This record gives sequence, structure tokens and C-alpha cells, in this order.
Amino acid sequence: MTPVISIIMGSTSDLPVMEKAAHFLNEMGVPFEMNALSAHRTPEEVERFAKNARGRGIKVIIAAAGMAAHLPGVIASMTPLPVIGVPVNASLDGMDALLAIVQMPPGIPVATVGINGSLNAAILALQMIATGDEALQVKLNEYKEGLKTKVKQANEELASISYPYKTN
Amino acid sequence: MTPVISIIMGSTSDLPVMEKAAHFLNEMGVPFEMNALSAHRTPEEVERFAKNARGRGIKVIIAAAGMAAHLPGVIASMTPLPVIGVPVNASLDGMDALLAIVQMPPGIPVATVGINGSLNAAILALQMIATGDEALQVKLNEYKEGLKTKVKQANEELASISYPYKTN
Amino acid sequence: MTPVISIIMGSTSDLPVMEKAAHFLNEMGVPFEMNALSAHRTPEEVERFAKNARGRGIKVIIAAAGMAAHLPGVIASMTPLPVIGVPVNASLDGMDALLAIVQMPPGIPVATVGINGSLNAAILALQMIATGDEALQVKLNEYKEGLKTKVKQANEELASISYPYKTN
Amino acid sequence: MTPVISIIMGSTSDLPVMEKAAHFLNEMGVPFEMNALSAHRTPEEVERFAKNARGRGIKVIIAAAGMAAHLPGVIASMTPLPVIGVPVNASLDGMDALLAIVQMPPGIPVATVGINGSLNAAILALQMIATGDEALQVKLNEYKEGLKTKVKQANEELASISYPYKTN
Amino acid sequence: MTPVISIIMGSTSDLPVMEKAAHFLNEMGVPFEMNALSAHRTPEEVERFAKNARGRGIKVIIAAAGMAAHLPGVIASMTPLPVIGVPVNASLDGMDALLAIVQMPPGIPVATVGINGSLNAAILALQMIATGDEALQVKLNEYKEGLKTKVKQANEELASISYPYKTN
Amino acid sequence: MTPVISIIMGSTSDLPVMEKAAHFLNEMGVPFEMNALSAHRTPEEVERFAKNARGRGIKVIIAAAGMAAHLPGVIASMTPLPVIGVPVNASLDGMDALLAIVQMPPGIPVATVGINGSLNAAILALQMIATGDEALQVKLNEYKEGLKTKVKQANEELASISYPYKTN
Amino acid sequence: MTPVISIIMGSTSDLPVMEKAAHFLNEMGVPFEMNALSAHRTPEEVERFAKNARGRGIKVIIAAAGMAAHLPGVIASMTPLPVIGVPVNASLDGMDALLAIVQMPPGIPVATVGINGSLNAAILALQMIATGDEALQVKLNEYKEGLKTKVKQANEELASISYPYKTN
Amino acid sequence: MTPVISIIMGSTSDLPVMEKAAHFLNEMGVPFEMNALSAHRTPEEVERFAKNARGRGIKVIIAAAGMAAHLPGVIASMTPLPVIGVPVNASLDGMDALLAIVQMPPGIPVATVGINGSLNAAILALQMIATGDEALQVKLNEYKEGLKTKVKQANEELASISYPYKTN
Repeated sequence: MTPVISIIMGSTSDLPVMEKAAHFLNEMGVPFEMNALSAHRTPEEVERFAKNARGRGIKVIIAAAGMAAHLPGVIASMTPLPVIGVPVNASLDGMDALLAIVQMPPGIPVATVGINGSLNAAILALQMIATGDEALQVKLNEYKEGLKTKVKQANEELASISYPYKTN
Repeated sequence: MTPVISIIMGSTSDLPVMEKAAHFLNEMGVPFEMNALSAHRTPEEVERFAKNARGRGIKVIIAAAGMAAHLPGVIASMTPLPVIGVPVNASLDGMDALLAIVQMPPGIPVATVGINGSLNAAILALQMIATGDEALQVKLNEYKEGLKTKVKQANEELASISYPYKTN
Repeated sequence: MTPVISIIMGSTSDLPVMEKAAHFLNEMGVPFEMNALSAHRTPEEVERFAKNARGRGIKVIIAAAGMAAHLPGVIASMTPLPVIGVPVNASLDGMDALLAIVQMPPGIPVATVGINGSLNAAILALQMIATGDEALQVKLNEYKEGLKTKVKQANEELASISYPYKTN
Repeated sequence: MTPVISIIMGSTSDLPVMEKAAHFLNEMGVPFEMNALSAHRTPEEVERFAKNARGRGIKVIIAAAGMAAHLPGVIASMTPLPVIGVPVNASLDGMDALLAIVQMPPGIPVATVGINGSLNAAILALQMIATGDEALQVKLNEYKEGLKTKVKQANEELASISYPYKTN
Repeated sequence: MTPVISIIMGSTSDLPVMEKAAHFLNEMGVPFEMNALSAHRTPEEVERFAKNARGRGIKVIIAAAGMAAHLPGVIASMTPLPVIGVPVNASLDGMDALLAIVQMPPGIPVATVGINGSLNAAILALQMIATGDEALQVKLNEYKEGLKTKVKQANEELASISYPYKTN
Repeated sequence: MTPVISIIMGSTSDLPVMEKAAHFLNEMGVPFEMNALSAHRTPEEVERFAKNARGRGIKVIIAAAGMAAHLPGVIASMTPLPVIGVPVNASLDGMDALLAIVQMPPGIPVATVGINGSLNAAILALQMIATGDEALQVKLNEYKEGLKTKVKQANEELASISYPYKTN
Repeated sequence: MTPVISIIMGSTSDLPVMEKAAHFLNEMGVPFEMNALSAHRTPEEVERFAKNARGRGIKVIIAAAGMAAHLPGVIASMTPLPVIGVPVNASLDGMDALLAIVQMPPGIPVATVGINGSLNAAILALQMIATGDEALQVKLNEYKEGLKTKVKQANEELASISYPYKTN
Repeated sequence: MTPVISIIMGSTSDLPVMEKAAHFLNEMGVPFEMNALSAHRTPEEVERFAKNARGRGIKVIIAAAGMAAHLPGVIASMTPLPVIGVPVNASLDGMDALLAIVQMPPGIPVATVGINGSLNAAILALQMIATGDEALQVKLNEYKEGLKTKVKQANEELASISYPYKTN
């Protein structure tokens, strides 16, 4: 199976955050790969990765980093593929990573999700690919219906809490 | 008993924060209901809820949410009832939720209370209804007197701490 | 005509911000009053105002202030009426006023609107009173329909801008 | 021509920011549409728009909004299409809009670009579609090469500034 | 002994922060009093306190509060005495309390110290009184010399840590 | 006349902010001096100034600075006199100066006023001296009464604005 | 003359900020070069520049960038030379650029100066080189003495402003 | 061995943060010293230290401090040596220390590293000295190669995690 999504993180310490993305892609049956490459410590590896990704069949890159998080932007500057940036909370509640990822200059976008938002990054990656893949679209719709069911079940539990003046 | 106040939260994970509101309404003997509905995961449910609330006798809605907290504003856009927004601290110390709730555009207000301020939301809801309900006004005044008594008792304890140079 | 809404501001320099509230209440035909009273420079006047407001027939107080904005909270501590706080941008983009108004301690809520959000304060005041006033409710619904019409007209103008590849 | 990208903004006051996206899509020859719909003032229109977009052939939605910017998230909750959020600086330097757009809860991502970053939103939209469209990919690569040429020309101008001790 | 410094706090939950001030004043042998009075829950008590403080012989007031911390400013508005404000970290790392205390409008200053800075508040109170009290000045100088000694001792411990390439 | 208050600023560019303090002290008839001394560019001058101030009869020092504002803290470390710090808005809306002045470590307080709050610094300086100077106390009370009169006059102007539904 | 300092900026729009660095180096008679290279738009040029700088005789690199400012960190990852980062205020008062430059991960430092602090970057570059260059050290000391003279002259002007109660 | 780098910290409570710098310098075989001196509590000691450092053979000073962190700037004002500032997180996530260190006024730079970034401070100190020391340059290059090896090993571990749809 050729991977179509590549998850890349600045440090293995980002793994606990990024695992949710891996689990989701796995659950959806979409082949992916996962690597740690530091924009600052291994710039040549990052360059090689970014320049070859499209040729290897990758369609979307998910890049996670904390602090002065350059990895998503650096990769975006070296590939025509869409890059999704995940700001990781490693300091300052993740505000430094958020600003270092989202505030890209004109010409080189990074599709930024919320702080530690790796699940949303994976969903977004599939939404991007689904613009040209009807079967994937169907799967995503099923996933979304599942979310609603969970919220409804939660609400039923909530409704069952009773106080004298609570009426549902 | 028909509920007159509806507490709605974006996720059941907001329950520990919102319980103070439920306890207070219960203690004041005001019928209320409590539900979990996500602005993002169950938009149709939210719409149905918001559009029917007034017809069902609800007078004030208390809506709590964290992160990019859209629930209070989305409900406010679909009902003529006053909506009280409670920013829940789920990330960034709650600043994201506060700004996403309070900074509503002209035309659609949300009455915002402090971060995790569910007790104040419940008091505010009663103050709103009390503008047309003398009996409730009397109850609220009794509650406020109770607050003063508690502060005075606390002060007495404080006065009893002794240091050689402390003179009260 | 006895006023039912009282607009109070910390300084006459807040008048340009608060005029939108006055215009709206006037347009809706709701009797109101407007005063400048400083929580810090005229504390006795503020106390007299806050303690007498309900007896004079006021139902909702709108209080605006900038910087270390204490006026809304100080009034709220002295009246059973609901108090709407308007943070005025006088420094730090209004963040100081927002936090000094919204982060009230448990027991004394202030219904906070957005920075410089005086129009929303006025709408919220009417929503509160309308919980017990059907005629006012009808007027508010008409106002909301008017908002939609304006947005639709704006959209028509937008649709009329043409580029070769723009298709609406 | 059926539009494949839909630009939607919360208010026509966002037009000066969003024009760069329109110009870019026009220049790239990609059919698009542009509308103003307010999440708060016209929720039914927003719902109709979001639910029909995919059926009408839209592949990516670009949604711009300021302040408590709910439009991108509300649309994302009602469509399987990828939604790109553009935070517009209408207050607080745009930080309120950025947080209200990017901090989406798990399950409903919004691909967020920088504050006022409409050009990047348009580029990102094309990158998403290009994952399944080789011809568009080629066009994007040409655009990127053009960016480099501009930077190199700028550098030549810079090199021509002379000081006695400047050596390039 | 008539107290010359009055420590007042918005809530007994501020006591752990304020104890350092009490210990210091005790150690310096300066008579003081300590009370809890809430600007919002017991406004009449606060007014009585503020208006009588000078007549009772108080020379400086130290007021501590968290969140939308109004206590120092409210007291300052009702007394000619200098008021020292201590922002207590009860939410948002104490930034809300800091801004709500320090950003006072022209005419009514509050001498603000750092977040949770109760020891500095007590030292500052003595510095103020020492402007007219030579004996207290001497005591303060002795205290300051003691600080230096502690830093020098700490440095000696640091100097004793050894690494092969560490040379002091 | 020997000056009793010394105003010191980090740069003459702070003069427009500090003039209000000078005007107020002049109006109150309190002898003062005003100097520019940079903590960073003229550290020896600052040291000489700080160490001699008390001996020359100075009772309170007002120190203003912007950016990484060290001047108030540096002076406070070298004198037993109370030091009032005025954060000047030279960058970041003055937040950098506020934090660099107010967040002093235990042992060395700086009495901080609001951003650009030079008038309040001057009032606070007089309040400090007035703890031991009855005549000055009387003058300050007169000044405070004048503030109230101004607010009441402003209110009268406000009351004279008329709308059909405005009732005061 | 071989340049020993290289000034590089992300965009020619940073030139007005960086000119102060160029003027200072020129005034000090230190050969330098100045280029615009974008980390995101011309990554290959940046790499070539960074990898060759030391071989060409460059001793210190000054890199300026705004927004999600990656240029200083990217260069630092590709050269053993010390890199000085200048955050340029292009959005959010420069806070995004400051955090994106200063919060580098362990292993790859960037010596960060204040927002728009290009003069300080140039002085710092000379201080670095002067650790091995006695003649340059002497020049820097002369420059510092000049700063003191300017501050003293400014103080003399200030002393000449007269108010009746001003005594210097 | 004469030390060439001097590590100085405002308080021994900063030692756990600064130990990484000491370990690194030790590992690299560069003689250093380590002291605690408070800008505020021992200003004379700080002055003596700063003025004598260069004469004793010190080439770079690393100064760490938290809160209103004046130590790096105060030292920088009294020595021609380059000073590296390490903001220590003692309050407000370290933002107060960062701003109090990095926002130095024109003329007196401090080379600031990230919050708690003591390792980077030590690396930067060696990079500065290495501009005139070829042997040290070689050592630094070896260190950087080691960083790459660690990242590559981490990546191999990551590659070994397996999910059914993970393909590397």
C-alpha cells in the first residue's frame, strides 16, 4: 500500500499528541506514514522529504511542531502539496506554535488547525482528498453521523441527572 | 412544571463547570432543564432547540462552551430570547472561549459572564426574569443578604488569627 | 414617561461609543435615561444611583467604562437589577476593560457584551425586558428581520461585482 | 461555468480583505462565486448555502469573518467539504477572530490561514483541488516560480543600494 | 497599639497570599490589622471601612483581590490615604487582576505591586510611612542589608557546586 | 526651595507623557525636580542619583520608562525611598513596560501606576508624603472634590442631550 | 573588502526597519552585505546562502523577518555561525515574529533582539566579533561613551524647562 | 584555567533551569564560572562583576532572570561584552521575563534566547567565541552532527510503531 498521507512531527515528544491522527487514519483505512524530522536539526532530511513527497504518491502532509514551530512552513515552501499544520503545546499554552504556524506570509499557506488538534488535522486531510474521491466522501459522512450519535447519547445521560426542580 | 431556564452545554465534559448553575436554580426553586448539544456536531438539533425554546415557555437560555465556543452565539442568532454565554476553560486558560463568545457582531448580543462563571450565569438568568417577577426579586435579595453574612463570618475568622503586632 | 433603561457611563468621553445604544432605544420607542457617573470620582453619586434605580422604575442598567472598568461591577453590587457591562476601548485595545468587567466573582454577575458593543447592550436590555413584555418581543422580531434584509441587500451588491471567472 | 470554489464572508466590510482571493482565482482561471452571509443575522441562508454547496459542484469553501468569527465553523458543521477560515482583523488585531476560527473542537476542522490572509486561502483552496487535478498542479507550480523571481528582483534592487562599507 | 497599616482582602481565599505581608509587618514590629471585605458582596462595609480608616489612625491600606479586582480601586475612591493593590492570581495567571487594579483612571491612583506580591506591598507600605519616620527608615535599611547577605550566601553555595570545567 | 519629589525618565521622548505630573505638582505648589537618566546608557549617573536622593531631601521618586523598562526597578534597588513606576507606551501598547516594572522580585517593590499614568503617579507621590503632612492632606482633599464637580458638570451636559424617548 | 557581517531580510518591505543596522555598520567602518531572501519563497537560495556564508568570510548573520518569521531559525539550522534575529512588526504588534524567532528548540539558538531592533542587532554583531578583535572593542567603547553624552545633553535641555515649583 | 564564559543568575531558584548550560559547557570542555547575583538586592556586586568581567578574561556573559528580569540588561549596560539573556519562567509562563529582557532600548542589546532556554544560551555563547576560534568551531560542528543522529534514531523508533494502515 502506498501511503497518501504523511504525518511528520518535529520531535518524538509530539507523538502523544499525534497518535490521535494515526488512530483515525487507521480506522478510516487510509494508508499513511509517520516520521519525525526536525526543521532545525535535520534540515537536509526535511528538504529531501518535502521535495520527494509528491513523487512518492503523498497527497497531503500533516506537520506538527511546538515552540517556534517552523516545520509546517518550511515543508510548505518546498512542496506543491497542501500542508496541514498542528501547533503543539510545548510552551506558552501553545500560542507561540500557533502564531509561528498560522501567520505565514502571502504565497505559502499552511492549513492550520487548533492547538494539539491532531484529530482535526487527519479529518481535514481526508476532506481534502475526498474532493476528488467519492468513496472517501461517503466514509467521512458516516463518521460525522457517528459524532452526532455520540452527542445525543451524552445528552440522554445528562437528561437522566435529576434535581427536584430539573424537568428533563 | 414547565422549565423557564434552559442550560445547554457544548459537551458533557462541561458538566462539572455547569453543575453550580443547576444547584443554584434548584436551591432557588426555579424549574429548569439541562441538555448537551454541540453547535458543530449536531447543528440541526441546536437549530430545533433554539427555534422552539420560546414556544415551550423558556425565558432565558444559558449556553456554555469551550475553545472556539460558537454555541451561545449560534443559539442567539436563532431565538429572540436573551442568551447568557459561559466561556469554559478547555484551552488557553479560557481566553479563546471568552473572545469567541463575547465579541459578537452588532445585532446579536450574548450576555457573557466570566470564565467558568456558571453560578453567575444562573443568578443573571434569575435577575432577567425578576424584572417582571416580584416574588423572584424578593428571593434574590435574600440570597444576596446571605452572601454578605458569609463574608462577615469569614472576616471574623480572619480577625481571630493573632500575631504579636496584629491588633484586630 | 418613566425611563425603564438607564445608560450610565464612567466618563463623557465614552459618549461616542454609547450613542448607538441611545439611538437604538429611541428608535424602538423605549423610554431611557443617560448619565455620566464615575465609580472612582463620584462614588457617593454612584451608590445613590444604584440603590434608587429599581425604586424609580428602572428595569435594566447599561454601564460603560474603560481601563480598570469598575463601574458595572460596583453598580451590580448595589442593586438587584441586571447590569449590562460595555467595555470601552480606552487603552490596550479594550482588553483591560473587558477583563475588569467580565471576570466578576461568584455572586455578582455583570452581563458583558463585546468591546465598544453598545448597540448589543441596548438590544440585550430589551431582550431582558421582553421576557415579560409581549409587545416588545414583537418589535424585536421586526428589528431582527430588518437585519436579514440588510445582509441580503449587501449580498446582491456583492453578486454584482464581476470578474471573468466569477460566476455569480 | 460552474464555480468550484465559494468565497463567503460575514459582512461586505470584509470585501477589501477578500478581494485578493478573488483576483488570484480569476488570474488562475478557476471559476468561483462570492457571497456575503452572516452566521448570526441570516442563519437560515447560511444553512441552505452550506447544505447545497457540494451538490452544486463546489469543492472548497473559503469563509472569512471578524470578531467572534463563527461563520467558518458553522459552515464546516453543515458540509462535508473542506472549509478554509480567514480571520479578519476587525478588533483586537484579529486575535479574537483567529481563536474563534482555529480552536475548533475535535470532529469539525477548519483549515485556518493567517489574519487577513485571503490570498493564502485562495492558494490553499487550489492546492486542495490540485490533489486530484494535474493541470491545476502545473499552474500552481508556475505561480510559485513567479514568486521566486519577484524575490530575486527585489534582492537585486537591494544590492544596488550603496554605502561606503557595503560590499554587495 | 493603634494599627497604622490595614490589610484588606476580597476573600479569605486570598489569605495564603497575604500571609507574607502579615509576617513581615509583624517581624518589623509595625502594628497592623487584617480584614476580609468584598467590594461586591459587602459594599456598605467597604465604604464604612474606607471612610473611617484615616480617622482611626491608619496611614496606608494594602488591598488584595483576584479576577475583576475592584477592591483596591473602590477603596482608593473613598479615602485620601495611599492604597497599595495586590493582584491575586485566581484566574488567567493573575493578568485580569493586574489590569483591573493598575489601569486606574486619572485622579484615583492605586500603587500596584506584582501578581501575588504581598511581601512587596508590606515593604512599600513601610517605605511610604518612613518618608516621615526616621526610626522606621533605619529598620528598613537593616532589612535590605539582610537581603544582600542572603544572596551572597546563596552564591557561596552555588560556587561550591563543582564540574571539571567550572572554575569558581 | 528644596525639591521633595524627583521625576526621572528614561528618555526625553517620555516628556510628553510626564508633563502631566509636572503640571500637577506645580499646581499643588510642591517643589520638584525633573531629569532624564537612562538605566542602560548612563548607569553611573543613575546610581549617583539614586544613592544621593534621600540625602538631598527627596521623599518620593517617580520613574518613567518604556519597553524593557528597568529604570524604576534599578533606582528602587539603590534607595530606601519609595519609587513610583510609570510604564510608558513605546511598544506593544505598553504591556512590555508594565510587566518590566510591576513584576519586581520579593524585597524591592515599585509602586506601579497605569500605562502612561503620570498624573496618578504625581497624586500618589503626594498621598505618600501626606501620611506625615496634614496641610498637604487638606490640599489633596480639595483636589478630589474638584474632580467630583467636573464629573457632575459633565453629567449636566449629558442630561441636556435630547432624544424623543430620552427622559432626563 | 570582504564583508564580515551579512544582513538578510525576508522581504524588501523590511528595509526601512533594517536601514538603521546598515547605517551603524557603515559608520563603524565594518564591511557588510545586505540581501533579501525569503525562507518560504526562495528556500534553495536561503540554503545556498546559509551554507556558504562562513566560507565567504562572514562571521555573524543578522536575519530580519515578520509574521511567522522563520528566516532566522532556518538559517541558524544550516550554518555554524551565530545568527541574530530581528522580529519585524508586520502584524500583531510584532508578537508573532518575536515568538516565532526567540522560542527556538534546544540545539539551534537564535540571538533575538527587540521588535524592530535593528540597531541593537548591529551592535550585538560587533560585540560578538569584538570578543576576538581588540580594535573593534575600542570603537564600541567610544560609541557607548557617545550615548552617555547624548543622554546628558538631553537632561540639560530638560533641566532648562521651568515651572514655578520646579527647582532644577 | 581562566573561565571565558560567566553564567550569572538572579536567584539560586534559577539553578535547575541553568544547569543544562553548565553541563553543556562542561561537556564541551570550555572553562566557565557560575554565580548568583541579584540586580535588585545586590546592585553593587552586580556592578563590580560587570565592570571587571572583561578584565578577568570573560568573553561572553550568560544572565538568567525571571519576572521583571533586569539582570541581563543591567549587566549589558556596564560591560562591552556580549550578554546573552535567558528568560526564566517564574510567573506568567515567562512572558514577563521575556519582554523585560528582549525589549531593550536602542544602544544596549541583549542576545535573548527562548524561555528557560539555557542550553541554547550556552551554544550561542560558544558560537560567539568560535567566530575567532577555529578549534571550537570544529567541536560545535561535531555537536550539531550528533543532534542529527539523535533525530534520525528517534525517527527509526517511530517508524517501528505499526498500525494496519501505517506503511513505514
